Formats: sequence, structure tokens, C-alpha cells
Amino acid sequence: MYIHAVSHYLPSEVVDNEHFTQLNGLSNDWIVERTGISERRKAAPGENTNTMTLEVVKRLQDKVDLSAVDLIVGATYTPYDTIVSLAHEAQHYLEIADIPVVSISTACSSLLNAIEVVEGYFALNKATRALVIVSEHNTVYNNERDTMSGHLWGDGAAALYITKERQSEHDFDIKGLLTGGAAHSQKATTGVMLKPSEGGVSMPHGRDVFIHACQYMPKATLDILARCDVPLSDVNYVLPHQANLRISRNVMNTLNLPEDKLISNIQYLGNTGCAGCAIGLSENWDKFKKGERIIVTVFGGGYSYGAMLIEV
Amino acid sequence: MYIHAVSHYLPSEVVDNEHFTQLNGLSNDWIVERTGISERRKAAPGENTNTMTLEVVKRLQDKVDLSAVDLIVGATYTPYDTIVSLAHEAQHYLEIADIPVVSISTACSSLLNAIEVVEGYFALNKATRALVIVSEHNTVYNNERDTMSGHLWGDGAAALYITKERQSEHDFDIKGLLTGGAAHSQKATTGVMLKPSEGGVSMPHGRDVFIHACQYMPKATLDILARCDVPLSDVNYVLPHQANLRISRNVMNTLNLPEDKLISNIQYLGNTGCAGCAIGLSENWDKFKKGERIIVTVFGGGYSYGAMLIEV
Repeated sequence: MYIHAVSHYLPSEVVDNEHFTQLNGLSNDWIVERTGISERRKAAPGENTNTMTLEVVKRLQDKVDLSAVDLIVGATYTPYDTIVSLAHEAQHYLEIADIPVVSISTACSSLLNAIEVVEGYFALNKATRALVIVSEHNTVYNNERDTMSGHLWGDGAAALYITKERQSEHDFDIKGLLTGGAAHSQKATTGVMLKPSEGGVSMPHGRDVFIHACQYMPKATLDILARCDVPLSDVNYVLPHQANLRISRNVMNTLNLPEDKLISNIQYLGNTGCAGCAIGLSENWDKFKKGERIIVTVFGGGYSYGAMLIEV
Repeated sequence: MYIHAVSHYLPSEVVDNEHFTQLNGLSNDWIVERTGISERRKAAPGENTNTMTLEVVKRLQDKVDLSAVDLIVGATYTPYDTIVSLAHEAQHYLEIADIPVVSISTACSSLLNAIEVVEGYFALNKATRALVIVSEHNTVYNNERDTMSGHLWGDGAAALYITKERQSEHDFDIKGLLTGGAAHSQKATTGVMLKPSEGGVSMPHGRDVFIHACQYMPKATLDILARCDVPLSDVNYVLPHQANLRISRNVMNTLNLPEDKLISNIQYLGNTGCAGCAIGLSENWDKFKKGERIIVTVFGGGYSYGAMLIEV
């Protein structure tokens, strides 16, 4: 299974920490120290997960012919439309008839669940060329005045073209992928929530989310490396879920890896949900060198986690 | 792939057509003639897709030991929580650690997409015993005063225990399954929508939805029968998506099958979204005889469709 091309889209409006200082009294220093976030993007009126889907699909079309796509998997926990999903929106735009399309969510860890669903279709021989779209419109469900988590969220989207067979020598090889639910733990189902009919996002147990994210991402990383028989020392980059810079640094510390192997965009994007890692992959695509190995590891509310080993 | 057990749950409150007569002036005769619906269920305050998930999982536990479940796939387009999905809620209740859990949506056709995702995990050998949950809380997103579609919707949920290997001689054998997106058609992305942040469900192009449902369900049925090399005459029952009794009758008519082969619960449940067919399977479980063949065929907003052939 290979990633042939990636694209991303960021809304143009930048929201800096000063915005929250005026709203809530949270200072720039306080926010940066606790989260690493200096600014984040906010979708414009009229933008949503479906319009951002079209943006990333068009940008992907600039890189690769998508006319042979035979599977579309979308992911979001901030849906514009739960019936006309972003996967439908992409199919409508591409005008490809009668292919499986499905939208999924495991919150911030959805990217890897979406790719695992693709892996299943490939194993069934029901598809060979998949379009994966991750798109989050956090700001529409976010209460900016919430001093617990209002300042964390940003908007953005990404798309990946994933094929069963290698298309070119530049493809990124997915060597292994695992996902898991961790909803069994005590506060998992109340740590962070998004109830569309009851006011949107809330994070009453941020500390519990923090602790479990710091535990599960290193564990999943070591698990996938063991399954692929690749030593940790062969990993060139780690791209963790972009929830909080302190979590990312904690993950690197637990793995005993230097911070120059950490890929991070949370400083200028905030938490862009399940889109964060895919945006990071897209932003850094040209920087990766042949033979390098990248770990993508995710953690999401609910809870859920996952890890993927990519070889460039 | 086998269905070993099924359960369902219906909220206790019954909403009859007289409710809409008082609200909108729509008469009982008018509603019954156009939709076949006489009454539907409405979730109580405090009930939602996650609480109904727990109800169906508990009822399934009365029939089968769920401690060996190694995959949970949830489906809904009327989510209570888009982060703590119904799949997480089930995992939390069952206290099963570190198994893949994911929630999906292709609107009213999600049941078959969920089972196809299970099929993929089985093919990957990443799971062998799956819990599939379909749960819809339409009334929370519905505008009852909408004379176009306010009277159509009902609430309900169902759960299926699906295994890769046969567990008993009473298991229902899934002989074949297909799904497809049909979002390429002109009005597909505006026919029926649910925008949580913009007022909920609307169906501005009900006639287009009707026409495509009547076309796609018979087509998908014939496709899956052809793939399984089973003649239409060997089909004992057809269980179509429960959207409108006129659509169901139209499907039977197009297939040239008698109405006594039609399974229908829309008369007393309304459109329960992706839960409708699974509730129908659960309601009729004991009536099916060894060797009988059942077609489940679905159609959903976006659009999406699917068909599954089951042999008892």
C-alpha cells in the first residue's frame, strides 16, 4: 500500500493568541507555554468540511490524475453534513459513478482508521486506488470563550491518494498500520466530547486526555515498529497527532528520540483534528529523502489511537 | 462471514399521525397514502444514539457472549457525540481493551457499509468477531413542522454480532455484499441533508431521492444476485431500506416479486435511517427458515446504495 500524493488546504484567516487575551484574559505566554500554539486558522463564512474537501481534491488533481479512483474514504468529527458526507462531496465533484464511498470517525485519530479501512478494501480486491480525505472545521463547534479548550482548535484539510500497487519510485510505502480503541479506560468517554445538539466541543478532563495521549502514542509506535521488525533507531521522523506541543515532546522523550526528529505544525495551526498529521505529511513531502522512515502516530477522543510506519 | 445474533431497541414513545395533523394539518390519510407510515417512535429526553447503543448491546448480550469481540463498527448520521462515537460507547461498556473501533456513515445505507468495513478487517485477519451497531436519533435533528419530511422520521437501534467463521448451524451466511456511492448524479448532494450547525434535516428534493432509491435498490439486488450466481426466483424475502412504503413496493414491482416477500416495518416505525433494515432483521429473525434467502438492499442520502444476500 503506497501513498502516491498528498495535498492540504488551510483557510486564510489567522487567529492569534491576542484574540483569546481579549476574549478570555488568557495571555500569549500562558497559551504558548501550555500548548505551544501561537496561532491557528479559521474557516471563512461559507467554508466547511465539504468545501475544504473540494479544495484538497482540486489541489491533489494538480499533482495526479484522479479519474481512476475506485474508493473514497472521508473522515471528520466536525461534519458540515452528516448525510451528504465529505466522501459524497468528493465523489460528486469527481463524477466517478458506482464506487464505494464512506465517511468515518474516530475523532482526532481518524486518519489512520481511514487508511485501515482502505487497507481492508484493498485486501478484499474491492478497490486498488483510494482517495482519503480528512477535513476538520473545529471552529464551528468550538466555544472560544471556554478557557479549558477554546484556544486549542484550528481548521484545515488534507487529501491522500493511496494505491495498492506502487505507481512510481517516489511513492511512500506504508510498511504497517495499526489502530485501536481505548474507550475501556475510566474517563475515556467523558474526556473530550462533541455533542452537536448540546453546544459542541467540551474537554472537561483535559488532563486525562493528555496522560493517555502521552502513553498510547509511544506504545503504538513501538508496537508497529516491532510488527514491522524495524528498530526505533531507524526512524527518521515522528509525526504525532497535533494536539499539544507538550504532548508531542513527551512522546519524543518517552521514545528517547531527539526533538529534531519531531514534525510539528501545531505552533501555527492549533489542533486541526484528524487533518493535522496529513497536513504535516503534505507540508513536508518534498523534504523527505529516499529510504527515510516516518512514524505517524495518533490519539483521539473516545479514546482511540494508532500508528503507521512509512518508508520513503 | 456469518450473522450469529441480532438485537434491536425501540424507544417507548409512539408518535401517531394525529400529532402532525395538529401541528401541520397533514391528515392521517394523506401521510399513509404517500408514505405508508401510521406511527413512529421517539427517543425520550436523555436518550440518544449512545444510550440506544447500550440498550442493543445489552440485549445482544442476553443472546450471546460478547467478551471475545475484537472489532466494533458503529454507524449513524444522527450522532449524539461525534468524538465519543457509539463504537467507543460500546467498547467502554464492554470493557474490551485495544481492539479496532470505528464509526462510519453513509446515511441511511450505513448498515451495509459498516458490514463491508467488517468484511475488510476479516480479510486482513485483523479481526474475526465483530459487533456492528446502527443507531439513529432522527427526532433530535428533525423539524416536525417541515411538511416535506417532518413526519417521516423515527428513532431506533440494532446490533449484530458478525463472525468470520460459522459459530452454529443457526447462523445466517452472508453470501455477498456490495456498496456504492451515487453522489455523481445531479441532485445527489442536495436531495436530503443533515447539517448539525444549520438546523438539521431537510429534504428539498424528495422526488429525486424517491426516483433514485427506486432505481438503485433493484439494480443493486440484481447485481449481488448475479455475483453470487443465485437466481431472483430463489429469493424468499426482500428487506429494503425503510424510507417509504411506496418505494419498497416500487422495488418489489421492478423486481417482479410478490409483496408477500417484502419485509417492512416503516408502517409503525417510520424511517429509522440506517437502523431500519437491521431492526427488520431482528424482528423477523425467528421467522426465517433454514435455507431461505434474504436480500437486504439499502439507499441513502448523498447518495449511496448497497445490497447483501443472506442465506439462513
